[in-house]
Amino acid sequence: MDSQFDGQDFLSCCGSTRFAREMVAAGPFSGLDQALEVARHIWMNIIDVNGWLEAFAAHPEIGSTSSASNKQEQSTALATATDHSLQELLEWNSRYKQKFGHVFLICASGRGSPEILSELKVRYHNRPIVELEIAAQEQMKITELRLAKLFATKANIGSSTLT
Amino acid sequence: MDSQFDGQDFLSCCGSTRFAREMVAAGPFSGLDQALEVARHIWMNIIDVNGWLEAFAAHPEIGSTSSASNKQEQSTALATATDHSLQELLEWNSRYKQKFGHVFLICASGRGSPEILSELKVRYHNRPIVELEIAAQEQMKITELRLAKLFATKANIGSSTLT
Repeated sequence: MDSQFDGQDFLSCCGSTRFAREMVAAGPFSGLDQALEVARHIWMNIIDVNGWLEAFAAHPEIGSTSSASNKQEQSTALATATDHSLQELLEWNSRYKQKFGHVFLICASGRGSPEILSELKVRYHNRPIVELEIAAQEQMKITELRLAKLFATKANIGSSTLT
Repeated sequence: MDSQFDGQDFLSCCGSTRFAREMVAAGPFSGLDQALEVARHIWMNIIDVNGWLEAFAAHPEIGSTSSASNKQEQSTALATATDHSLQELLEWNSRYKQKFGHVFLICASGRGSPEILSELKVRYHNRPIVELEIAAQEQMKITELRLAKLFATKANIGSSTLT
């Protein structure tokens, strides 16, 4: 089924070019579960720090919604954000980026804006190396949701072609 | 005493420009012990991942000796290296850099070439994030030795000026 997936598909799930290349090389997958398992292994064990930073850099900052899919992923955060809290989120994002050299990454799905801001303030005190690994784990959660969506979309396209 | 130290002095101890800047800002130090304590704090808590990678990139690969001070720091390794083991070291260095995206860092002082090669082979199996922190700790050991030498040199210059 997944032989339809190419590098661009996987790159839309995680912005590391090496991740996309390794996923293409590891496929085809028997289904989503296998793809998730392989993706986790590649992301946590194979991709080096430069690849992690490359993937982080592919994200818009939280609060900014430059694409339809980002808007959807951040829908709860945006629905619960007041002008004031959004402003505070933007300011802390900027402080975070100043300290760590990369954007603040959190799997925003289902999280309200106050919860995200509170997480950001706690994580701000971490050592850079600790924060790097947390950000990578959050990236993995985001990638998993996107892979699930990718498989679901392609499966639907497959079925509608058959009808 | 240490008001003689400028950014270039600290940069020669650790190739992160931010480290050098923070050391200058944190000085003057009452002596080596205080300088080491501050340096450890800056390196482990303040410098971000990009700064770590910048410092790693300032090192020649082990086995290559592009400067007199590097030659001295690697003197034990070089004295114990045969042509064959040096070749193997160079090959593993290259494999390491391929996997992790940065040079293999080890405080080579007092270590023989076989010990370094054996460490490299063990560390090669680490996850990139684990290896990043080990490399940063090795960089700190190297920085400590260089700071001690810097303080000793400047102290000697101070005394000879007085005689």
